[in-house]
Amino acid sequence: MFNDFKMVDDRPVYVQLKDYVQDMIVKGHLLEHQKLPSTRELSKLLAVSRNTVLNAYAELEQDGIIYAVKGKGNFVGKVTTLKTSPIELDWKNRLNTATLLADEIDLVRQDIQWQKGMISFTSIAPEEKLFDVENFKRAFLTRMSLEGDIVLNYGYAKGYKPLIDYLLRYMEVKGVDISNKDILITNGFTEGLDILLSSIAKKSGRVLCENPTHHAALKLFRLHGLEIHGVDMSDDGIDMGQVEKTLAKMDFDFAYLIPSYHNPTGIVTSSEKRNAIFQLFSNYQIPIVEDGFNEELRYSSSHLAPLIAFSGSGNNIVYIGSFSKILFPGLRVGWILADKELIASLESMKRARTIHTSTLDQAVLYQYLQDGYFEKYLKKARAVYKKKYELARQACMEYIPFCKIRGDGGLHLFIELEVGIDARRLLEKCYDEGVVFYPGDVFYTNGLGKNTFRLGFSRLSEEDIVRGIQIIGDTLRNDRRG
Amino acid sequence: MFNDFKMVDDRPVYVQLKDYVQDMIVKGHLLEHQKLPSTRELSKLLAVSRNTVLNAYAELEQDGIIYAVKGKGNFVGKVTTLKTSPIELDWKNRLNTATLLADEIDLVRQDIQWQKGMISFTSIAPEEKLFDVENFKRAFLTRMSLEGDIVLNYGYAKGYKPLIDYLLRYMEVKGVDISNKDILITNGFTEGLDILLSSIAKKSGRVLCENPTHHAALKLFRLHGLEIHGVDMSDDGIDMGQVEKTLAKMDFDFAYLIPSYHNPTGIVTSSEKRNAIFQLFSNYQIPIVEDGFNEELRYSSSHLAPLIAFSGSGNNIVYIGSFSKILFPGLRVGWILADKELIASLESMKRARTIHTSTLDQAVLYQYLQDGYFEKYLKKARAVYKKKYELARQACMEYIPFCKIRGDGGLHLFIELEVGIDARRLLEKCYDEGVVFYPGDVFYTNGLGKNTFRLGFSRLSEEDIVRGIQIIGDTLRNDRRG
Repeated sequence: MFNDFKMVDDRPVYVQLKDYVQDMIVKGHLLEHQKLPSTRELSKLLAVSRNTVLNAYAELEQDGIIYAVKGKGNFVGKVTTLKTSPIELDWKNRLNTATLLADEIDLVRQDIQWQKGMISFTSIAPEEKLFDVENFKRAFLTRMSLEGDIVLNYGYAKGYKPLIDYLLRYMEVKGVDISNKDILITNGFTEGLDILLSSIAKKSGRVLCENPTHHAALKLFRLHGLEIHGVDMSDDGIDMGQVEKTLAKMDFDFAYLIPSYHNPTGIVTSSEKRNAIFQLFSNYQIPIVEDGFNEELRYSSSHLAPLIAFSGSGNNIVYIGSFSKILFPGLRVGWILADKELIASLESMKRARTIHTSTLDQAVLYQYLQDGYFEKYLKKARAVYKKKYELARQACMEYIPFCKIRGDGGLHLFIELEVGIDARRLLEKCYDEGVVFYPGDVFYTNGLGKNTFRLGFSRLSEEDIVRGIQIIGDTLRNDRRG
Repeated sequence: MFNDFKMVDDRPVYVQLKDYVQDMIVKGHLLEHQKLPSTRELSKLLAVSRNTVLNAYAELEQDGIIYAVKGKGNFVGKVTTLKTSPIELDWKNRLNTATLLADEIDLVRQDIQWQKGMISFTSIAPEEKLFDVENFKRAFLTRMSLEGDIVLNYGYAKGYKPLIDYLLRYMEVKGVDISNKDILITNGFTEGLDILLSSIAKKSGRVLCENPTHHAALKLFRLHGLEIHGVDMSDDGIDMGQVEKTLAKMDFDFAYLIPSYHNPTGIVTSSEKRNAIFQLFSNYQIPIVEDGFNEELRYSSSHLAPLIAFSGSGNNIVYIGSFSKILFPGLRVGWILADKELIASLESMKRARTIHTSTLDQAVLYQYLQDGYFEKYLKKARAVYKKKYELARQACMEYIPFCKIRGDGGLHLFIELEVGIDARRLLEKCYDEGVVFYPGDVFYTNGLGKNTFRLGFSRLSEEDIVRGIQIIGDTLRNDRRG
């Protein structure tokens, strides 16, 4: 007894001792009314100060785990944990189909197991080494000293007011008329889309989107039981002819579009096409959910207004934004910018489901933005990613045979191989050579794209980017030969 | 032009100037190809350094908002924000019934408007002045210096590993057999319950709970379309006779119980009753969702194991915990402790809906707990709240006529007036006297409790607690007389 007490370095010893004794008691190794070692004995036995033992015993007594008898010492108290025969429910059988579907279509679970030392093109998360940790700490300390107590207490479902005001202004200088609009802060883009999908009434039950498109959005559409209609992409965005035909044929509850650095193709929808898209969907009175994905990460210098800027004081575009894709994904902060009344209803949903988004995340992000660190960070990040992008593109041209690369930037490339070549088969072969990537078919609404794959390069070194692409090219060539 | 440029103090001036010029351009106040003032002119006009103007122009040029012609100056670029006639959709008509219901039953929207200077007993949020801001900052800086880059990048849907391990151990010393169990980190208790409700199959479609009970849980049950069966409370917890009768009569998908400091009554379910509850629901194979609400905030010193400790290695209890009720509600961190396989499925749902909970929140909370600050904070907080609790209870006994007070602690008191007295009418009268509280009927499953109300005292000064309760008592007496 007490011989197996093991200390860890970075935790107060009295707390460790308290937990240890409590654990012995609740597990029945020490019995009710059993006498505990005196503080003197125990401190000697464990080679800790007597004060440590006194503190631990005092807390245990306060919690009713032990009791003291004056002049006699400390004894184990009454701790009820009557253990009866364990009940085993079959939980799988008690889950609904949406949850089983979520399990089934969870990409992370399907993922080929990544091994240490491999070159992985699967991630499009930002490069950690770029993170501006020092200024982030600075922003934290500034905000905490200004209103630490407010940051740590309950906030509002709608979000942290200074951040909302900042973002409204941020969208205003992008050309958005914010007069009848408002913002709801969410736990990243994904919660924003999920709350919206949970709120929109199913009339036709159909959504129109680009094909391929963002797989997390496709997953949510499926979980919400929507019928997904994908429209092919041409080089400057969605194929307008197909859109027209589709809209003429059937009704849609909404459309979901990613006009900038479309995931996975990287295509940037041109200004002319943005205007045409806005006009066409307006004619059909179909709202557009605009995914502001990586809008900030432009490598070229031509101004492009988001779709919502085209709507003026109208309310048919719902914009969902997030800085987390390039700034700090560990902070879960996104936002929905939309019609004021719509936001008020979404706010009720948000309150019912998660009360509000972390005030700490929002407040520190606000301070970081407000202090102008974002602009500086973006300049640095753009330069690094642009270089990697050009390098990756160049390497693809050089090493991967028969490929078509679309898109103008972002943190990934989307490769189309000759029709008939199976990217999943290629992945298997590349895996043996220590290289992994995302097969493109997961982004397709209709099972197509078997000959496509996505290469995320943001977190790889320049050396690994070139080497990895070279291996993919060699593997492809060998496979075709063999 | 440029005369209405107004600077704010705490933001880099070049960023403010950049935003200002961009705003003028996207709003059409500056036209395409129009020449901008030279950097020298503008710096003079606005009394800012020339470098500031140079920086602003450089960023605008990089973003494609303006263009430079060598030797000629800077000009407005092509900025497309074609504004057409605005489209007005009727969003209310496009929302589903759950969302309209969420709007309708949103307590915050129904709230009597609180005015400055009033004594408000509505909140049960922790007292901000108690917050241990300094140690929180310390925990933040420690964690950031250890792995700032990891904290800021994407994490895992299941949660931050060190925090999960900490919580498993934390629950283990409470007597829980963790061998076949696992933890999913959520955005507070509310998201935990919502994810669970979104995942459990509707078979009977019924939930059994205490009556009254936590209104946020009731709201979620309603939004998920569950049929709610409330069982009356006796002084030591739920009425077991009624539970037995109810279970014999019909089937339930699950039960929802708050064994410690039950909200709103404050009742602590006795150890004997916990055992009886566990046995009875086990016999019927009905899982229990245990709300660990304020379990940490015990004022008396007798050990009470959570219900899940009674299940041993069984899997029929799902425990949802949160420190946010007493520690830092601004950080949205809660957790579900349950059967390993169930947690794996809930994790897929969590990933689909919010990717993961803020790593920043989780990591700083972990460090704060690991460093033993929580124990110290709890000791201080308990002392303060206990004093307020006793004071409030004493004042109720003294000033409020014909009342029954139940419960043993927590951050609130639940008052039962004589049957026939309308607490909402009392609230209206008290409002005129500058005192507000929560009418009790919102906690009832069946429209009862019209003669009850809840007094949250955590954030009030001792003086205001006594004065407020005195006013309620006086108002009640006057009303009965009048």
